[in-house]
Amino acid sequence: MTTRNITRFWEWGRKIICIGRNYADHAKELKNAIPTEPVVFLKPPSAYVREGSPILVPLYTSNLHHEVELGVVIGKGGTSIPQAAAMEHVAGYALCLDMTARDIQDECKSKGLPWTMAKAFNTSCPVSDFIPKERIPDPSSVKLWLKVNDHLRQSGCTSQMIFSIPYLISYISDFITLEEGDLILTGTPKGVSSVQEHDELQAGIEDVITMNFKVDRQE
Amino acid sequence: MTTRNITRFWEWGRKIICIGRNYADHAKELKNAIPTEPVVFLKPPSAYVREGSPILVPLYTSNLHHEVELGVVIGKGGTSIPQAAAMEHVAGYALCLDMTARDIQDECKSKGLPWTMAKAFNTSCPVSDFIPKERIPDPSSVKLWLKVNDHLRQSGCTSQMIFSIPYLISYISDFITLEEGDLILTGTPKGVSSVQEHDELQAGIEDVITMNFKVDRQE
Ligand SMILES: [Mg+2]
Ligand SMILES: [Mg+2]
Ligand SMILES: [Mg+2]
Repeated sequence: MTTRNITRFWEWGRKIICIGRNYADHAKELKNAIPTEPVVFLKPPSAYVREGSPILVPLYTSNLHHEVELGVVIGKGGTSIPQAAAMEHVAGYALCLDMTARDIQDECKSKGLPWTMAKAFNTSCPVSDFIPKERIPDPSSVKLWLKVNDHLRQSGCTSQMIFSIPYLISYISDFITLEEGDLILTGTPKGVSSVQEHDELQAGIEDVITMNFKVDRQE
Repeated sequence: MTTRNITRFWEWGRKIICIGRNYADHAKELKNAIPTEPVVFLKPPSAYVREGSPILVPLYTSNLHHEVELGVVIGKGGTSIPQAAAMEHVAGYALCLDMTARDIQDECKSKGLPWTMAKAFNTSCPVSDFIPKERIPDPSSVKLWLKVNDHLRQSGCTSQMIFSIPYLISYISDFITLEEGDLILTGTPKGVSSVQEHDELQAGIEDVITMNFKVDRQE
């Protein structure tokens, strides 16, 4: 077996499980109903991109959106994890973007098609350095922000989440077994907007981490 | 690094990329339009199940369907793979089932939600032994069948596919980089039907392989 280093989970982790519409103000800005259960979708590990490499705009979209999200890194796998034990399965966190081809997503939604083309493309999951669990003692009160070319676009707090991290871990693990190295994206606050080639994105978790990505065109 | 044995790709492969509606007769039986481009969705590697372990009916469905499919195992990764070179990236094949919670999928389609709950649950991807490429010299003419409790339900030939294997490899790799150990499910012929606890499923590729799975209830 490989020696798996959790601080480089993106190199060997096998799942990215994403939650949509987990902040009421974001659900509203996209004119979606407030969900009564989590909206779950997947990105493949090939979607990861790290600082120093660009976010690529797929050729088929003309409306690529940023969504800044808190990522939860699973340290200990499990199935049907009770909420009360959920945090024992967390190794740490990462600041993440859920890059979304909004025009394609709208089309998928109206045609009843899966969201893969809108959500799962290469570089659709920019990810920060690993943040050990101890650095975020209260994950239910984390301030996230995102700037495009130095203009603040998103600013929110995980206290606004509809479904908490323990709830999500329990809910997901009832039907999808969680494994070490998996990542859960917990949804985005309001303020999503379009990015273009040459834009510079900067995102942060207050007092913990920042990251920078440049947007480029797929050649 | 791990020594990766391609004959056990399900233990370490990181993606399962599935194609929907790739046989016209199956698209019709579900009253879907014949697609003009591939319908792509994902299962996570936690969906794999091997002979000897049961297919589990998720608690939230009352209409679990079998879909027998030819799986293509990627041996050499790549991005934007041209159709002419696509078969060089194939290591072999596997006989697969795309287990589908049809009631949930119908609900997702009508609400414009992602298909994850319908397609990505534990045991939603029963998979046979690895079939080396040489055992299937012409993948465009492979006969697949599936029986439930000895009654033939599905019988089709990959010659009926709307999008060929080289086309799919090229199409997918334009936006999702393929990696060694990835699996592509190429769609199902007509005859999908509901399975229940205690059912016995048998599936085969004519002259190549058979596999057996029992259906059980999630406890
Ligand atoms: Mg999906
Ligand atoms: Mg999101
Ligand atoms: Mg299928």
